[in-house]
Amino acid sequence: MSLPHASSSLPDASRLVHVDLGERSYDIHIGRNLLGNLGPLFAKMFGGAKAAIITDKTVAGLHLDAVQKSLEASGVETHVIVLEAGEKTKSYEGLTKACDAVLDTRLERGDLVVALGGGVIGDLAGFVAGIIRRGMRFIQVPTTLLSQVDSSVGGKTGINSGHGKNLIGLFHQPSLVLADSAVLDTLPRRDFAAGYAEVAKYGLINDPGFFAWLEANWQEVFAGGPAREEAIARSCQAKADVVAADEREAGQRALLNLGHTFGHALEGMAHYDAERLVHGEGVAIGMVLAHEFSARLGLCDPSVTDRVIAHLEAVGLPTHIGAIAGEKPTSDLLMDFIAQDKKVSRGNLTFILTRGLGQSFVEKGVDPSEVKSFLEEKLA
Amino acid sequence: MSLPHASSSLPDASRLVHVDLGERSYDIHIGRNLLGNLGPLFAKMFGGAKAAIITDKTVAGLHLDAVQKSLEASGVETHVIVLEAGEKTKSYEGLTKACDAVLDTRLERGDLVVALGGGVIGDLAGFVAGIIRRGMRFIQVPTTLLSQVDSSVGGKTGINSGHGKNLIGLFHQPSLVLADSAVLDTLPRRDFAAGYAEVAKYGLINDPGFFAWLEANWQEVFAGGPAREEAIARSCQAKADVVAADEREAGQRALLNLGHTFGHALEGMAHYDAERLVHGEGVAIGMVLAHEFSARLGLCDPSVTDRVIAHLEAVGLPTHIGAIAGEKPTSDLLMDFIAQDKKVSRGNLTFILTRGLGQSFVEKGVDPSEVKSFLEEKLA
Repeated sequence: MSLPHASSSLPDASRLVHVDLGERSYDIHIGRNLLGNLGPLFAKMFGGAKAAIITDKTVAGLHLDAVQKSLEASGVETHVIVLEAGEKTKSYEGLTKACDAVLDTRLERGDLVVALGGGVIGDLAGFVAGIIRRGMRFIQVPTTLLSQVDSSVGGKTGINSGHGKNLIGLFHQPSLVLADSAVLDTLPRRDFAAGYAEVAKYGLINDPGFFAWLEANWQEVFAGGPAREEAIARSCQAKADVVAADEREAGQRALLNLGHTFGHALEGMAHYDAERLVHGEGVAIGMVLAHEFSARLGLCDPSVTDRVIAHLEAVGLPTHIGAIAGEKPTSDLLMDFIAQDKKVSRGNLTFILTRGLGQSFVEKGVDPSEVKSFLEEKLA
Repeated sequence: MSLPHASSSLPDASRLVHVDLGERSYDIHIGRNLLGNLGPLFAKMFGGAKAAIITDKTVAGLHLDAVQKSLEASGVETHVIVLEAGEKTKSYEGLTKACDAVLDTRLERGDLVVALGGGVIGDLAGFVAGIIRRGMRFIQVPTTLLSQVDSSVGGKTGINSGHGKNLIGLFHQPSLVLADSAVLDTLPRRDFAAGYAEVAKYGLINDPGFFAWLEANWQEVFAGGPAREEAIARSCQAKADVVAADEREAGQRALLNLGHTFGHALEGMAHYDAERLVHGEGVAIGMVLAHEFSARLGLCDPSVTDRVIAHLEAVGLPTHIGAIAGEKPTSDLLMDFIAQDKKVSRGNLTFILTRGLGQSFVEKGVDPSEVKSFLEEKLA
């Protein structure tokens, strides 16, 4: 058994993004072929602690060996918990199973959970870590573009309920994030594109220059050139800045939900069936809807929406509700999901709207009847 | 329908204990016939918010009407969730059911959960509040002596798993606690005595004067005279002082676990079967064991143990393992539960030991083999 020499030191090419949250601060390491660094980093930061790796069957077949060997070569005792792949694991049942599996390992309060996988595993494992013995530390090793640029940063953890997505969970910040851009080489193109929707989102929130850079460089991001690490690092930095300013979403953190209120409703309508719609695709359609709704309210020039649609279509993302396979939703059904969304307050809806490209803002006083009329038009 | 006039203002006799935790600070109101104050207090503190009352079937039959009427008379929209009574509700299944029930009410993030019941309801409802939409506020209205003096103060919430008690949960502080000593009049004597074990604990931790006061006044505490409010208030104050100094149990908060490591193991051995052993009874036996173990280590004079046993027996509490009905545990089984306890670190056991009456301290380096020998002697 030979281990890559890279595991004993950080590759020069790795980038660091620091998430500044006081005593809950942590670093995101970004670069190609970083998995082998996990063991040395773990041993250095948490010397003597043990690890419970939570992953899913798909990721286990691809990356578990490298992660486990890296940890064990650094003397870290590891336990492995392999769950079913897919959104259904982010459920009460998945939570129960994962909690019991971690308790089975007899890990102690000072040990760590390692979340190896995409957003489902990261959200679930982070939640599990947050509630076992009232809080264990955890490490994110995100293996999808979506989780590298979004769900592994910021400490939101949770599961879905029959009432909607992410309605059960808590804020629990990781102690370390390791984003290896090389693992994305094994990602199906559809999943890469879905994650890319969140990358584009950072441009659309408040960075038109980044959006223009993506329009020029997206092909290299998809192909795996250096632009990929650049895109991941800029996305993580953008999210880290927002999270550091508003950890628990009292205000501006809500900007990160651009496209998400519509997107979550579409995911709910599609019963979280990944065959029909994955999260990033819902966000892509949701961002287009947010721009169209802003235009309808007279806030934003329709040409901005055209530019957004053009770019998302270029990378292969869906941009309208009609692109979702299967039965079409009614506006009533979508409004029902929207009303149940976490961001509702006192009967008013909160939406992220925009005044132009990269000029998004939080609007808390949206009249539900305006949204319903808009959706009826879109579904007509 | 006539409401008591007392509901519009605080009775003069109520006592306030302030739990000082910075932005998570809150007040505990203690007094007779306080239930009618909930509505006015709620309206004043959380004007406009709605309430989901989580309770169990037993408590609902006794006190739900008063609580609900008080809230509604103050204009608070209420929803009621009634769960099965008993420790089995503090489970994954109970958690799932309660979360879904709160989501069914369509309450929003700014609304509140009201936990009306004993420790089971308080621990579960607090946990539910902590994880719905990543955190709703909640109010404790404890209806047992145990929950008034212990579980409703300090923010520990959680459920049991097959691996042990309270292994899944989080720290989530209530926004208000209302301890009505009159509701204890309806409590079975056995349950009152079990709660009293935690009252006596505060004396045994660090207040020998309070223990002596209890020896002289326990009959009035049981009978419902003014000594009852005094005992509750002193207990809450003692716990509030410890929690304010160490909210997340990094150090001295562990003192509150006096008798609990043994007690939890005994509860686990008895399968949390309330017919055989309730929590406070486990704590009573556990406190005696902690004193006996301290004496065995040469830390504490055996006469202290005799005094503890005499007082606990006087109030009708069990004081030795043999008093538990049903099959006797083996030392191996108890050690297994002890090893799984949250307070284990790096193979050493943490116990609360004592050097004399009211002179408890945290000992992190207890050798498991010493504990096993001690238990073997006790079980011989």
